This record gives sequence, structure tokens and C-alpha cells, in this order.
Amino acid sequence: MTDQVDSHDTQTQDDTAAARVPERGAELPRGQDQRVVLGHDKPLRLDCGIDLGPFTLAYSTYGSLNAEKTNCILVCHALTGDHFVADPHPTTGKPGWWHQIVGPGKIVDTDRFFVICINVLGSCMGSSGPAETDPATGKPWGMRFPVITIGDMVQAQARLMDALGIERLFAVIGGSMGGMQALEWAHTFPDRVFACVPIATSYRHSAQNIAFHEVGRQAIVSDPDWCGGDYLEHDKRPERGLAVARMAAHITYLSEQALHRKFGRRLQDRSTITYGFEADFQVESYLRYQGSTFVDRFDANSYLYITRAMDYFDLAEENGGRLANAFMGTKTRFCVISFSSDWLFPTSESRAVVHALNAVAANVSFVEVQSDKGHDAFLLDEPEFHETLQGFLDGAAEHLGLPRRGEG
Amino acid sequence: MTDQVDSHDTQTQDDTAAARVPERGAELPRGQDQRVVLGHDKPLRLDCGIDLGPFTLAYSTYGSLNAEKTNCILVCHALTGDHFVADPHPTTGKPGWWHQIVGPGKIVDTDRFFVICINVLGSCMGSSGPAETDPATGKPWGMRFPVITIGDMVQAQARLMDALGIERLFAVIGGSMGGMQALEWAHTFPDRVFACVPIATSYRHSAQNIAFHEVGRQAIVSDPDWCGGDYLEHDKRPERGLAVARMAAHITYLSEQALHRKFGRRLQDRSTITYGFEADFQVESYLRYQGSTFVDRFDANSYLYITRAMDYFDLAEENGGRLANAFMGTKTRFCVISFSSDWLFPTSESRAVVHALNAVAANVSFVEVQSDKGHDAFLLDEPEFHETLQGFLDGAAEHLGLPRRGEG
Repeated sequence: MTDQVDSHDTQTQDDTAAARVPERGAELPRGQDQRVVLGHDKPLRLDCGIDLGPFTLAYSTYGSLNAEKTNCILVCHALTGDHFVADPHPTTGKPGWWHQIVGPGKIVDTDRFFVICINVLGSCMGSSGPAETDPATGKPWGMRFPVITIGDMVQAQARLMDALGIERLFAVIGGSMGGMQALEWAHTFPDRVFACVPIATSYRHSAQNIAFHEVGRQAIVSDPDWCGGDYLEHDKRPERGLAVARMAAHITYLSEQALHRKFGRRLQDRSTITYGFEADFQVESYLRYQGSTFVDRFDANSYLYITRAMDYFDLAEENGGRLANAFMGTKTRFCVISFSSDWLFPTSESRAVVHALNAVAANVSFVEVQSDKGHDAFLLDEPEFHETLQGFLDGAAEHLGLPRRGEG
Repeated sequence: MTDQVDSHDTQTQDDTAAARVPERGAELPRGQDQRVVLGHDKPLRLDCGIDLGPFTLAYSTYGSLNAEKTNCILVCHALTGDHFVADPHPTTGKPGWWHQIVGPGKIVDTDRFFVICINVLGSCMGSSGPAETDPATGKPWGMRFPVITIGDMVQAQARLMDALGIERLFAVIGGSMGGMQALEWAHTFPDRVFACVPIATSYRHSAQNIAFHEVGRQAIVSDPDWCGGDYLEHDKRPERGLAVARMAAHITYLSEQALHRKFGRRLQDRSTITYGFEADFQVESYLRYQGSTFVDRFDANSYLYITRAMDYFDLAEENGGRLANAFMGTKTRFCVISFSSDWLFPTSESRAVVHALNAVAANVSFVEVQSDKGHDAFLLDEPEFHETLQGFLDGAAEHLGLPRRGEG
């Protein structure tokens, strides 16, 4: 094994440093915002046919790997997510995106589990992507970065697991695009995944999903500051286009009911409409804020690449047009979770996954959580969702013979 | 009465020409794409408090007004619609937007009814709007055009009805924003509307509706070619921003099912994905086409103004927070129609209108048409919708004592 695990500050291109990957989990490099450079000797063969290597993954870990290396939970993040799953985001200072779920004594209990979250390939929080430097040119990759897929993201993650010496994951968990990765893990590495929790997701991107992504991409590439993707070289950023893309996407993350409850037709800092084009309504002000803050933390080209990866995802198509083929003979335990008001990845998509798993006699439980919060419910305080996840993880851990809660 | 009705080519500013408005409908200026200049002596007091006048309305008429002037149907168009309801659009050459509904022997039978459709105030097909010339400066209005409301549109239409000597409309019919106008007519002029057909609409724009409009507006004003709204003076047009706005809006006009049925994940002129950012998927190609053709026929500032008018519409808020107050004592017969898969103006919005009408003991019938076509169903071939509209109009005409079909 030639891949290496290094801290952020001591990143090295030295393949021989692979020996620094410890044999026992207790000595693993741990903590937030680590970097690892992989694929020195064996580049990653991407689905597009291009070899990528070496490549970098940024990741965070929480808790300790047990001696048997059987207590690892991989948490997969969504489109604009990152590896700061349980600790504050370095740019925004906001709590980790799943801080309610992941932490000591929490549902994904870092006192019991070794939890790892990896910034996906193509993203912009430290992993190789279009905003990073192409070693061949010394310039930002821009649109010369190869198009990646959900499968590529998962293959890259598996390389890191190899480097960490983790043969088998106790669980892969993810919402939205994170759920796509969870399904892809269970499909590609059935023997490496004991339990799989795809949340608010689908086995393929629908026409409407693709349509919304295409609007966002067109907003970005229509911005003159995009510069054909080379904005970093021109010291520009397509902030207006990226903000519009985010605004459009953000609407799809909330249900109509949630928008009505949060904002309705209430006015923003005024008692009457102004007969103008300022943000009279709270919902306008909110959306503008979402757009303007997003551009501070996300790269426009990464947005293009990751939306494309989601569009391309179709586990049925990849398996002869029959989704069940993707899980033939699986021994993985699945817990599929959807939210009743999620119109981006509606329950019908989760049901299709469940039907496919049933068709191959897989061990699967399915819960549609009643919620009016829409797609984003998986990131929010949803007691029924949390109880479901807790119950499934406890049961799976018991089945695998891991210590019970509090026994850790 | 000082308003005047003139043909497009002989438009005049002479108030005294008002005498040219004939006393009898048989001599009315008829046909497609007429122009009338109104408000010479008495400007239109807009809701924003500004007086607009003189102002121009473009309109088309079909059929003949009867001697009693009791057979007029006003058809109100939607956001990006126009007065070419039954004849080809001058730019696109496509058939009129409601050619399936309006015409000789059709549901809105121009052999029986005098049908008029008026380009709304603020639009760009001949009526006064931001792309027209401000008489005070000789330059395009741009963003100096006053912000208008659905109420202003209806007041302007009423001025034309006055000029035509039409005291009372047999029916006001409209879908989407056209339905808002229909409801506004019934509210503001209860004695002038015998029958009202609001289709696929609401009494107010929801938070989600406003959110989607705001995304479109931000796409437009973010385009550097918008030039603060003065693009016409700079010989530019914010085509990229307007195309993105149209693409986002277009998704909301179709149901998820319709997008799946029409496009699914089918590829466009290729057998495999390209691992790139071209329009691999048919739905992407379709959306790009919708965006690129829209900019040829619509003005970006008009898009800002008309979306704003829709956002501001709230018949409940205008009537003490109780929608029923808007229709107190009404004698108008209503037929409210919604479509089951319309998520832009869902059936729940129509139900709220029906409940309010029931609360004031109005004559109202309500049909939710089962359709998978989404919001745009009102523009498409939907037999149940067509039968409903036909039945209601026949019944109302009989009640008013108009000749039956074929008796005209």
C-alpha cells in the first residue's frame, strides 16, 4: 500500500511515507480537517476513463477505531457539504452540519464509533477539485478537471479506507447526495458495508432534479466573471451567477409548507409594500442572504462538477436497467429513510429503492418520516428521524456484537 | 368619455377622437393587435399613488358584440402571455396561446361571443410598460415605469371596456395570472361581471411563488447587460439572465410526472453520457431552448414588473385579512378550476377561494381536473377541463338568456 495519511500542515508527496499509516487505530491521525494524498503509484481510474493521481482528500475523524477496526461509520455529505460534520465550519463559524447527530453520546456516538467524513472528490474544501492546482500546469484545474461521478467519489473514499487499514465499515450513512454515495458503497463494495442508511435520496436523479441543476449551472456559466471556468486565474469569481444558482436550489430544499410557516407573505423590516424591487418580503431577503453567503464558502466550478455527478447517477441504468441487480446477493442491512414533504427526493424514490432491495431479499427497513420541513429535514431537528436512526444503529451494532450504548 | 379606440396604424393622441368609439358594437374596431390610447384627460391612478396617462393598451377582439352588448368575454392572459389568444404570435409564428379554446365553434365560441384579450399594463406586446417610450423623456421607461399591480391591470382593462361602451362582461376567464385578474374583476366590479372563471390560480401569491419569482428577478438584474434597467438605451439586452429566469420558471409550470414522461433521463442526440457539461439530457436541451427562445419575444424589465405585480397580489390582505370580504354580496357566478398536479398553484389555493365564496353564499362550482401535466395544463389539451369550461359557459349563457350553441 503506497497511499499515505498526513496532517493538513505536513502534507507530503512522498509515497514512502505510507508507512506512517499505523497498524492500529489508536494511533491513527485523528481530528478535524486532515489531508491525505492518495494514488501516487496507482492513480484513480475515473468513470470518464481518465486516470487521476495523485489526488488529495480532506477529511475529519471523531472517536477511536477499536482494535478490530469494526466500529467505523462513514458519514457522506451532500452537494455543498463538507467534512466538518460535527465541528465548526472554518469559513462560516457555524456548527458542523450534522452536529445534532454526530458527537459524544449522540445518535452517531463518537464515544462508541470511529466516525469519518470525507470531502468528496470535486469539492472545494480541501479535496482535489477544479479549484485546486493541477500539478501538471501549476494552475487551477478549472474546467480541465475531469468530470467525476458518484462512483468516483466512492472509489476515492475506499482508497482512504484502504490507507487507514479499515476493511469493513460498520455503517455508511448519508442524506441527499450523501445517500447516493451510501447506495453506491453498498452496490460496489457489498462485503465492506455492514449497514447502509440512505436518507432523503434516490437511486437516480430525476428529470426535474436534472432540470433544477441545469438552471443553476446556466446561471453560473452565464456570469461573465466565470471566464470560461478560469476565473481564479483572472482574480474573479462568478458570485452573482453562483448566488442565483444557490437561491434556485435552496427553494427545492424546503417544502412549500415550510416556506409558508417560516415566511408566509410577511414583510421584511417594513409595514407596507414599497411598490419597488427591494426585498419587501422576508422570503426574498432570506433567499438573497442564502445566495450571498454561499459564495463565500463554495467554489462555482465545484458546483458545476458535483451537480453533474448527481445528474449522472443512475444505479438502475448502470445495472441493466433493473435496480435490483445493483444489490443482488447483498448481506448489508439497509435502513431507508424519506420525509413526507420532501419534493426534491420524494418518498416514491425511496420506495423504489426498498422494492429493489425486497426483490433480492435484502434486510431492509423503511421509514417515511412525517415532516413539513421538506428535503432539508435530514439536517434539522426531527425527533422521528432521529429515533429511527438511533434504533437502527443500535440494532445493527448489537447484531455485529459491538458494545451497547454506555458500555463503550 | 374621452378615451379612444384606434387601430394600431392610426394611433393618435387626440382626445377629441373619442367620438370614434361607436355606439353599437357592430361597428367596433375589431381584429388582432389593435391599439388604444386611454387616460388623456383622466390618468389612471395606480395603486402606488402615481398617475399614469395617457397610456396604451394593445388588444385583440374576435366575434361580434351583440346589440345589447351582453355577450362579451374578457380573456385574461398569464405572466408572459399576450393578446394573441387565438391568432399566431407575430414573433414566434406559433398559434395563439389559447387557440384550442377560443375560436369559431370552440369552447369560447367566437360565433356566439365577442371575445377580447388585452395585453396587460406593464407587458411588452404593445401596452404601456417599461420597454415603451416615456412621453416625458422620449426614452424608454426602463425602471422609471411605475410599479403596477393586478388591480392596476384590471382598472386599465375597465377603461377600455368603458371606451368600448361595454357596461357588463358576460364572463371574465383566465388561467394563472389571468385567473388573478378574473378574481380581481369580480372583486372590484361585481356588477360588471356576470360570470368569472379563475383557472389554476390563487387569491394570493405564496411564499414559494414569491421565492421563484425572486430567483428570476435576481438572474435578470445580475446580468451586466441589464445596465440598471437601461439596456435599451445601451443597445443591449440581458438575454442570459432572462433565459435563466425563464428556465427556472419553466420547471414550475410542469409537474414532476410530466417532466418524467416527456424526458425522463433520456439523452439528447447521443447514446452515452459525454462526461462533460453539454446538454447530455433531453430535459437540459429542452430547458436551454425554452430560455433562448423566450428572450426573442419578451422584455426583461417587463418580466420584473409583472412578476412583482403577481407577488403583490393578495385579495385577503386587501380585504381585512379575510378573503370572503372580497366577495361580500356578489351575484357573479363562479367556476373555479384547478389541476391535480399543479404545484405552482395547487388545488388547496383554489379550495381557499371556493371556501371564501361559499362563506358569502356565492354561486360557485369547483372542479379539480385530474391531470399529470402540472400548471401548464390550462394551456394544453385536457378534455375534462374543456368539458368543464364548456358546460359552465353554456349554463351561464342560458341563464343570461343568450342564444344557445348553433342559434347565434
